[in-house]
Amino acid sequence: MSTAYRPLNDGTLPGVLAPLKEVSERLGGDFSQWSVQEVGDGNLNLVFIVGGPRGAVIVKQALPYVRLVGDSWPLPLSRSYYEHLALVEQTKHVPKLVPKIFHYDRNLALIVMEYLTPHIIMRKGLIRGIEYPRFAGHIAEFMAQTLFKTSALAVPAAEHKRRIWAFADNIELCKITEDLVFTDPYRVAKLNRWTAPYLDEIAARFRADAALKVAVQRRKLQFLTSPEAMIHGDLHTGSIMLTPEDTRVIDPEFAFMGPIGFDVGAVLGNLLIAYYSQEGHEGRPGSRTSYRHWILVQTEQVWRLFAKRFRELWDASKSGDAYMPELFTDAPGAAAFAAEKDRFMRALFVDSVSFAGIKMIRRILGLAHTEDLESIQDEARRARCEIKALTLAHRLIIEADKFTGISDVTSAARGIFAAH
Amino acid sequence: MSTAYRPLNDGTLPGVLAPLKEVSERLGGDFSQWSVQEVGDGNLNLVFIVGGPRGAVIVKQALPYVRLVGDSWPLPLSRSYYEHLALVEQTKHVPKLVPKIFHYDRNLALIVMEYLTPHIIMRKGLIRGIEYPRFAGHIAEFMAQTLFKTSALAVPAAEHKRRIWAFADNIELCKITEDLVFTDPYRVAKLNRWTAPYLDEIAARFRADAALKVAVQRRKLQFLTSPEAMIHGDLHTGSIMLTPEDTRVIDPEFAFMGPIGFDVGAVLGNLLIAYYSQEGHEGRPGSRTSYRHWILVQTEQVWRLFAKRFRELWDASKSGDAYMPELFTDAPGAAAFAAEKDRFMRALFVDSVSFAGIKMIRRILGLAHTEDLESIQDEARRARCEIKALTLAHRLIIEADKFTGISDVTSAARGIFAAH
Repeated sequence: MSTAYRPLNDGTLPGVLAPLKEVSERLGGDFSQWSVQEVGDGNLNLVFIVGGPRGAVIVKQALPYVRLVGDSWPLPLSRSYYEHLALVEQTKHVPKLVPKIFHYDRNLALIVMEYLTPHIIMRKGLIRGIEYPRFAGHIAEFMAQTLFKTSALAVPAAEHKRRIWAFADNIELCKITEDLVFTDPYRVAKLNRWTAPYLDEIAARFRADAALKVAVQRRKLQFLTSPEAMIHGDLHTGSIMLTPEDTRVIDPEFAFMGPIGFDVGAVLGNLLIAYYSQEGHEGRPGSRTSYRHWILVQTEQVWRLFAKRFRELWDASKSGDAYMPELFTDAPGAAAFAAEKDRFMRALFVDSVSFAGIKMIRRILGLAHTEDLESIQDEARRARCEIKALTLAHRLIIEADKFTGISDVTSAARGIFAAH
Repeated sequence: MSTAYRPLNDGTLPGVLAPLKEVSERLGGDFSQWSVQEVGDGNLNLVFIVGGPRGAVIVKQALPYVRLVGDSWPLPLSRSYYEHLALVEQTKHVPKLVPKIFHYDRNLALIVMEYLTPHIIMRKGLIRGIEYPRFAGHIAEFMAQTLFKTSALAVPAAEHKRRIWAFADNIELCKITEDLVFTDPYRVAKLNRWTAPYLDEIAARFRADAALKVAVQRRKLQFLTSPEAMIHGDLHTGSIMLTPEDTRVIDPEFAFMGPIGFDVGAVLGNLLIAYYSQEGHEGRPGSRTSYRHWILVQTEQVWRLFAKRFRELWDASKSGDAYMPELFTDAPGAAAFAAEKDRFMRALFVDSVSFAGIKMIRRILGLAHTEDLESIQDEARRARCEIKALTLAHRLIIEADKFTGISDVTSAARGIFAAH
């Protein structure tokens, strides 16, 4: 395999894959028989499905720029390195919840991985109104395992520092988040867009809302200075592929050592966007009522199952350098440690609620929008959904520490839905 | 200069220095005329004064083990690399408050620097009862400059991440702090020692104090996961050399990206140890009363001047990625941002108070003690000082967030002094 980077295409890709034994066996036949289809609909990369007589694989190749914007916005190929590094780490903890990796080529910035079928991107499933009975448990397990086990609660300090070191240079991908999530929606920025003119007023109001901006900037500082665990960094419903039985998390190229609540908040925030977008997908008024309810139940389940599992892992752990279990073996120690874990989980909940709100706003007033809302053709109707979502998001950020629990969040979501 | 590592001595050091133009010019004459004196009284390294006809330099060389304990406790030579890296960074911000660097040899783990004279180690000055009128202003400036200007409040995110990366591998030095400061004093550990039998009871009480242990472990997690700024990491009064006019901070080998309050707390905690140790140094009862008062005034001044300067630097800064100033240009924005800075400084104060208490306890119940207390020959008398210090430390940790300001801390210090 030649190692110089060049973007591959349907003509050149088979020749690159042919020498890879595991890949060619999986595809079967001769490489002249392989079909190549470019299917990347994300914002950043080339994604190919390569099919052969026996099977198929996915090939993901980074481009040296942001696909969504073009080569005027360069982006380093090293993101493929971090994606692979994160995938390898996640595979250790939740091998069944991520795609299998067959090959990684650092120079080509290319990862060959399992072709997931009949999985679809969760966001598309939510638009169609499909229920996924195992999703909440799976994503809760994914988050609890990957976040707890890469935290200083679980590992020795030396391992924690090495992991901080390993991801510290994923600078440009973090900068996308820093700019597009935490900054641009709160200022006049060329890349912002929204459903105009309907959202002009609320966008201007948010840009002038000093309390909101301070709250978001406080979270940005936390994002910059809190290597709590290896986070996925982009854990929205477009980074989840699933069937009713199986769930896989993909695309961890934004991974770095960051605040745990950022991942949890990403899932919650995207579910809440899906909740508010249902109204725009109703064939007749109320036709999505029960599905809307299902989404809120999942929102609650995601937090509850995550918190339960994270806490179980913590209770079972003996290896972390933070809160060393040997200090808390007597009865008063055990009680104080349990109370401290409760306090930690409460703080993590507040973090998650706030990050959820921040992720919602960036998807409606910032550069990168979601298909949940974008696919609502009638702009007035879409804007009504968006204004409700923004109203909740604002409250999640400003009053994060006033929500007593996840059902308080879903109640607020319902209340805002009904009131507008 | 030969580059293979070997510990140097008075016989081999001149030959190593002779080829260094800046060093040999500073010393003057021929290297056969140079005198070498090993003066290391710290816990870790070799320190030489090399004198020649014209002048003198300090040569600090790392040993591959902890000097205080011996070669049974290996410690990597790379600490010299981090010390140099930190010195270079500090020199950018406060060139007059650190020693000048003349030469650095990574292989020999050796730094040649300015010989400070007539400076003495501050701890020794405090034992002698010397007042340093410029100390509080100098150390406040040192901390404000080095901590603010290496924080995400002051620098772009990319620079912040690169700095996290650069220090992330200073693992073993951080581990000394993690073990000796945050863990060992709260468990039965071979390396612990204290003034027995007088402190046996309070040491046992602390080891059984669940609330105390939880509070300290929460701070340990913060130490592991809060790269707020490049901290000195060992900023006690033994890391400060001064005269009444001049102040220099030395020995930043524990430097890494950590919580700002850890440095501030180290200064405050060591001043409070000096305060309580005065009683043991009195020739006659009350002979140190006014000096004791002076120390508390300095404790207040250190915080007040630091907080003022840090805030001034923040107000003047336009370059940081956290809390970007452009978001807060209108009147409501400016007011909210000012209130947020107040909140940040308040949280930093609480952090500093808690870390001060933690640093005090480790110096009395842990491995490494301070000369302030150790030099009190009468053990019963020393123990009385130590129990007062521990009583305050406990309160600083447990009630950190109840102290309304630094004068509340010094009042508590006075109250405990008088009550016992």
